[in-house]
Amino acid sequence: MRRLILVVSFCTAVAFAQTNAPSLTGHWTARIDFYGNPANIGFDLEQKGDKLTGKFQGDPLEGMTDGHTFQFIAKDSLGGSEQVKGTLVHGELHGDVIESDGGMPAKPQHFSFVAVQRPPRSTAALQRHEFTPTVFYRQFSPFNKPVLTINPGDTVHTTTVDAGGVDHNSEYRVMGGNPETGPFFINTAMPGDTIAVHITRLRLNRNWAQSDDFLVSRAVDSGLAVKMKDAGKTIIWNLDLANGTATPAKPSEHLVHYTIPLHPMLGCVATAVGPAQAPPPTGDSGYFGGNMDFNEIAEGATVYLPVSNIGALLYLGDGHAAQGDGELNGNALETSMDVEFTVDVLPGKRAPGPRVENATSIMAMGLGSVDDALKGATSNMAAWLEDEYKLTPSEAAQVLGTATHYTISEVADRNAGVVLKLDKERLKTLTATQK
Amino acid sequence: MRRLILVVSFCTAVAFAQTNAPSLTGHWTARIDFYGNPANIGFDLEQKGDKLTGKFQGDPLEGMTDGHTFQFIAKDSLGGSEQVKGTLVHGELHGDVIESDGGMPAKPQHFSFVAVQRPPRSTAALQRHEFTPTVFYRQFSPFNKPVLTINPGDTVHTTTVDAGGVDHNSEYRVMGGNPETGPFFINTAMPGDTIAVHITRLRLNRNWAQSDDFLVSRAVDSGLAVKMKDAGKTIIWNLDLANGTATPAKPSEHLVHYTIPLHPMLGCVATAVGPAQAPPPTGDSGYFGGNMDFNEIAEGATVYLPVSNIGALLYLGDGHAAQGDGELNGNALETSMDVEFTVDVLPGKRAPGPRVENATSIMAMGLGSVDDALKGATSNMAAWLEDEYKLTPSEAAQVLGTATHYTISEVADRNAGVVLKLDKERLKTLTATQK
Amino acid sequence: MRRLILVVSFCTAVAFAQTNAPSLTGHWTARIDFYGNPANIGFDLEQKGDKLTGKFQGDPLEGMTDGHTFQFIAKDSLGGSEQVKGTLVHGELHGDVIESDGGMPAKPQHFSFVAVQRPPRSTAALQRHEFTPTVFYRQFSPFNKPVLTINPGDTVHTTTVDAGGVDHNSEYRVMGGNPETGPFFINTAMPGDTIAVHITRLRLNRNWAQSDDFLVSRAVDSGLAVKMKDAGKTIIWNLDLANGTATPAKPSEHLVHYTIPLHPMLGCVATAVGPAQAPPPTGDSGYFGGNMDFNEIAEGATVYLPVSNIGALLYLGDGHAAQGDGELNGNALETSMDVEFTVDVLPGKRAPGPRVENATSIMAMGLGSVDDALKGATSNMAAWLEDEYKLTPSEAAQVLGTATHYTISEVADRNAGVVLKLDKERLKTLTATQK
Amino acid sequence: MRRLILVVSFCTAVAFAQTNAPSLTGHWTARIDFYGNPANIGFDLEQKGDKLTGKFQGDPLEGMTDGHTFQFIAKDSLGGSEQVKGTLVHGELHGDVIESDGGMPAKPQHFSFVAVQRPPRSTAALQRHEFTPTVFYRQFSPFNKPVLTINPGDTVHTTTVDAGGVDHNSEYRVMGGNPETGPFFINTAMPGDTIAVHITRLRLNRNWAQSDDFLVSRAVDSGLAVKMKDAGKTIIWNLDLANGTATPAKPSEHLVHYTIPLHPMLGCVATAVGPAQAPPPTGDSGYFGGNMDFNEIAEGATVYLPVSNIGALLYLGDGHAAQGDGELNGNALETSMDVEFTVDVLPGKRAPGPRVENATSIMAMGLGSVDDALKGATSNMAAWLEDEYKLTPSEAAQVLGTATHYTISEVADRNAGVVLKLDKERLKTLTATQK
Repeated sequence: MRRLILVVSFCTAVAFAQTNAPSLTGHWTARIDFYGNPANIGFDLEQKGDKLTGKFQGDPLEGMTDGHTFQFIAKDSLGGSEQVKGTLVHGELHGDVIESDGGMPAKPQHFSFVAVQRPPRSTAALQRHEFTPTVFYRQFSPFNKPVLTINPGDTVHTTTVDAGGVDHNSEYRVMGGNPETGPFFINTAMPGDTIAVHITRLRLNRNWAQSDDFLVSRAVDSGLAVKMKDAGKTIIWNLDLANGTATPAKPSEHLVHYTIPLHPMLGCVATAVGPAQAPPPTGDSGYFGGNMDFNEIAEGATVYLPVSNIGALLYLGDGHAAQGDGELNGNALETSMDVEFTVDVLPGKRAPGPRVENATSIMAMGLGSVDDALKGATSNMAAWLEDEYKLTPSEAAQVLGTATHYTISEVADRNAGVVLKLDKERLKTLTATQK
Repeated sequence: MRRLILVVSFCTAVAFAQTNAPSLTGHWTARIDFYGNPANIGFDLEQKGDKLTGKFQGDPLEGMTDGHTFQFIAKDSLGGSEQVKGTLVHGELHGDVIESDGGMPAKPQHFSFVAVQRPPRSTAALQRHEFTPTVFYRQFSPFNKPVLTINPGDTVHTTTVDAGGVDHNSEYRVMGGNPETGPFFINTAMPGDTIAVHITRLRLNRNWAQSDDFLVSRAVDSGLAVKMKDAGKTIIWNLDLANGTATPAKPSEHLVHYTIPLHPMLGCVATAVGPAQAPPPTGDSGYFGGNMDFNEIAEGATVYLPVSNIGALLYLGDGHAAQGDGELNGNALETSMDVEFTVDVLPGKRAPGPRVENATSIMAMGLGSVDDALKGATSNMAAWLEDEYKLTPSEAAQVLGTATHYTISEVADRNAGVVLKLDKERLKTLTATQK
Repeated sequence: MRRLILVVSFCTAVAFAQTNAPSLTGHWTARIDFYGNPANIGFDLEQKGDKLTGKFQGDPLEGMTDGHTFQFIAKDSLGGSEQVKGTLVHGELHGDVIESDGGMPAKPQHFSFVAVQRPPRSTAALQRHEFTPTVFYRQFSPFNKPVLTINPGDTVHTTTVDAGGVDHNSEYRVMGGNPETGPFFINTAMPGDTIAVHITRLRLNRNWAQSDDFLVSRAVDSGLAVKMKDAGKTIIWNLDLANGTATPAKPSEHLVHYTIPLHPMLGCVATAVGPAQAPPPTGDSGYFGGNMDFNEIAEGATVYLPVSNIGALLYLGDGHAAQGDGELNGNALETSMDVEFTVDVLPGKRAPGPRVENATSIMAMGLGSVDDALKGATSNMAAWLEDEYKLTPSEAAQVLGTATHYTISEVADRNAGVVLKLDKERLKTLTATQK
Repeated sequence: MRRLILVVSFCTAVAFAQTNAPSLTGHWTARIDFYGNPANIGFDLEQKGDKLTGKFQGDPLEGMTDGHTFQFIAKDSLGGSEQVKGTLVHGELHGDVIESDGGMPAKPQHFSFVAVQRPPRSTAALQRHEFTPTVFYRQFSPFNKPVLTINPGDTVHTTTVDAGGVDHNSEYRVMGGNPETGPFFINTAMPGDTIAVHITRLRLNRNWAQSDDFLVSRAVDSGLAVKMKDAGKTIIWNLDLANGTATPAKPSEHLVHYTIPLHPMLGCVATAVGPAQAPPPTGDSGYFGGNMDFNEIAEGATVYLPVSNIGALLYLGDGHAAQGDGELNGNALETSMDVEFTVDVLPGKRAPGPRVENATSIMAMGLGSVDDALKGATSNMAAWLEDEYKLTPSEAAQVLGTATHYTISEVADRNAGVVLKLDKERLKTLTATQK
């Protein structure tokens, strides 16, 4: 069975009420308790006098409120209904729902909820936070306690341990598997939003990295698999921070002079998944970002990720001193990292997958088998062109046909990644008609 | 980064000590605590007088014991070492490990462990357990408390709710997403073993099922996607338990007489994953089985699954009244189920993926994209022929080339499944030389 | 560049004029000469008095005829036009076309054509043809001279050499690579039709077959590739025609008693591709059928294939004494074959891929990577349910979800094949509303 | 059946005899006639006095010669043998072969051959050829008559028509589908060699190109397929040769200012396939190159392609004024082209797929599904590192892991293409130990 989860998607185009009035009008984000399981849902209310209209889980609703209590009923086109009633408590809505599927044999479902509205954005001066992590998480979970709460626009300076759990002092701090720094709670970020994580500074903080000398199975055909059958050693790389280069610590004959430029990047940037979903391991990737292992997630890049929880809950980790496309050795040059970032909140924006932007390009990622990741990346960028540049399908096709750069970002993990990149130079000629 | 987890694999060929003597000889299963994270590891000791030899995480060890305390050192070929010391406590080994990678820049790792040996198999009479579930889990987790402990050979009679969390009384019991009955703790099952779950009886216990009328994206090309763009309704099916048939409750014009035979099956059978791994959602599948949605997992079938935890921790759920190959509607005919099963423990057996057996066939499953699942199924069956029938690669190729039946079992979930099936009739001619 | 070929598709729903009147009304099939390259196109005319209307390459046309000459112009929605004029010669239309793309920079194209109508079906008694092949072809080409012309319903009894070019006398007759018997010219078959090739009898005619002992790369993962690295021998199988079994001629230790039932099948059944397309090698497959290597193409089966040339031009070859799904050894049990078949013509029917039918099932094939072949097979069967059973998309989805059997038919060639099979028993309940 | 073609591979490491002596010593390339089918095979002879040794189709041979006639027998390890005898005629060997498989049931095969040695490289001055094509081919066939014979190092200046068959005067010259200029016969190129095609100049020669506005199915998921369902128009692009830009001729609202830089490239560069293989259409790609649609095959690039026929038989065509990665519209900006190139011959070099080199990078291509093309590209580059830089598998893995750039070159045709690119800058540090 695929997944018959209640309702975990969100209205994507909403008018947010930024009012202090006691009106119920606005978009509400509810944490529900469904027979012991938490989940998030969203709904929209419009109050005129004591009358309520709006949408609850996509269905039109009608009801009323006396300013202290409220009740409404939402009906779907198939005869199902949601009867909702509750109380206004310090600006929150506390309520109960009876949901009955019209003509369905299952008896009505019950659940309770507490709903809140987006808080106003802080007017305080932007802050720079020095954060020294003491705990590292191995799942992109909404249930880990936030380590720091920040406002949009604040800057955080922190560190990450390497994928194996070793820090900048070469000490083990946690079991390996991409342990993460975070989660950071971003004020005003609400489910249905997108956050923009801008990596303002990303620097190495120790002089070695660990990698391997084999090739992951997704990248090798039968013949190369046979050739590579005896490979699989750990390779230590010396990192020359002063000169910006890396070299194998004990190079074999033909690699004695082999030198690569350092290009620090973060393998993992993620938001927590919604509470109704099993928290993914920090080796996995998806709509939430995660272990994308994309070598353009480097200093100067902005990563766009969807918000599934109040506060977004941002994780970062898995620094690489350098990485070829695909992360072909399974491990890149795994090392600890010194990270500085700011986060902005983009209310009500949703994308079909992770997106990245830097000074020269916009980049849309697809994830899955390589064949499916290709489709996902193209679909993600087509939606970007439609949403931000208002292109018609025909126009998007013409731009994609003439301007696409594809990269296979990652093939070492369960999901492979493909990235479709467009030069901003090319997009400039579209902007005349934009907004 | 791929996954640099400590060590979570197990010796696969071990001689188990079934002795009560105070000797340390035997295979030990250790639960470790690695900087706050649990994991399982296995090691083998052989005691002669006060001398210890054996293997620790694959490396040869040497040490000694005085009957109360023990210490040994294991060395790998690259200059790394594990220094282990501890105490014998009521038949358990409580110890600490300092692991240093030879010449690696990371400082030594420390962890503690408690190791046990496989308990002797019970000599008590086999039991039949009536179990009424009151809690249902949504992850194949090793951290859920076992709901029942049984001996190998015991029979359990229980029920499962449907994929949406609705039971045989049509009542919601839990949030949807394949909530599971279990976990069942199987005595004597140890990491590195396989369990054989024999489904002795699988019957429907209500008169309706829920499905859909669209086709999952993995099965449709662009043209069919366009044709199907308006499909996506819930379809209720009436289940006629007396006559063994199902029909749409409100059939449209051409389906007025459409009738299918009932063929009850379990979409999910799983063991818990190891504690170092993030527990997968009950919509996922893998080496641990899980949401395989294979319509031959029906009454009379035996499902072979690897053991990653002491007691195996068996989960069952996601009953389907009937399902075509692939589970093309995303939902099959989702319904609650009456289940009876027995479990046997096969010490030290490991397979590269889930396996199923019934009266006429042996079946090996691969999981991933369809292309990769094909490779996995073939590899799984080749290993089966090698392990159980002692065939050489050339012989296995000849048998596979002439006797393979392939089925695409599932395309509705993150992993697609391919099954390679061999008729037992064909394998009989191999048995003369077996063992 | 993808393929900017003129126009090679055909009107699929046409009313065929079966008249001897000198009227031009009806569907015409034209062989064109385009700057030295032949191609087929179709067009429809309706004559009322001296006025002509209809469609030329999909565009509406208007013109006139005096009974000896004709001329018309067809215009597309973009401003392009086709000016056609010519002469009626013994029931054929001989003409010239000037095709100009509206507003396109390319200058007009010129080509000449000769168009014919479908001849009336013969009223002669059905014949049984004994045909002894003397030449064998290695491409599914429209340019090979037909070896025999037959009427729909006639029976042909012939033989095929094995995939390596060796006949029933164990003599080499042609270079290997699936050399074919044929092409057979089927009277009344016109481009845009489908032929139904019914295999009435398929028997072995020698006592040995040749195969291999390795596994094709598409079916093996890295680990199995390494295991199989030394396999690759030719294996001779003894065929016991009296008892219906096959055994390896020189079995190794564990295969001494290994015996499989004979199940004669044809690896190749094909129509010639259109003349504008490069003739595919007889190891390839596609919409035209070809080297499908599907083990249900056996005695009693009917294979449906599209017609791309006047007379269809049917090829058969590549007999297998037996074959597991996938043809995993690259070669199945390759042998020569004794074949008897009849052919029927289904005017104006088109399918998105090859189809097969036998006493119990209808089967739709997809070709490509396994992932893509899955999509193709599903799309092909959805079209079958729509065309023959008039199901809506929602209804087709419900039938496919509950009744699909998937098989991976072939993984040894450039195209893998997936087959979606439906039991006729299940379809019976649909027939009440059919027609 | 896969393909049981005689023998069409070649010894890859041979010592070529560049002698005028009447000795038979050296590598011979034979065109055989196998029951009416031509094929090429290679063999090596070493003459000492009247004794012959060497290898025939991989099997060791022994025989003798009197200077006018020769005879030898080659035996394989399975008891098979090839009896060869013939005559020396003006430096050619004319002979007959009886090939019997040891213990195989098939009767011996017979075939005749004429074998030649590589002619000496011309010492004449290099030439520049002006070539105006009058015929254009639509298959990469060895059977098309060479249009020009050139020496290695010579320069050819010529033109290509666009993919639709339209030339620089906007006139149709041939049916569409990537009609090619060529084939060019390259003196001294022998089967088993590689040719290096250096594109010294590639310029546009008309002011328009033709493309489309849809997206090919391989790049779209179900959702994007539905969005794109009404796209599919022809788009004409104006080419501004003076300013090096292209713009849509009739841009829709948001593309009024959309401008892309011209980047002329050749979609097709190919050698003819061997005569035993069906000639591929010019829309296909493979080991022979062909319709690769890779936008780095531009002025300044060198394309490495294997030689399957005496003289190589080089084809070029399918010019694109510009193309995004993947050729997502099916057609790129299709236009006619002015081409200048030189060809060099690399004796005895073989690669697993096409390779490209330019001033900054070496590039290895894989072809198939995107997942398989990824494997092919990696394997192709690993072989390059092994062959040219003498890297061990471990060393190749380290270089690939740290220096790989992946591009998805093409997704519009039957084969998708993936390219693995390495910066020459990175490879410099390997060269110290090369050779």
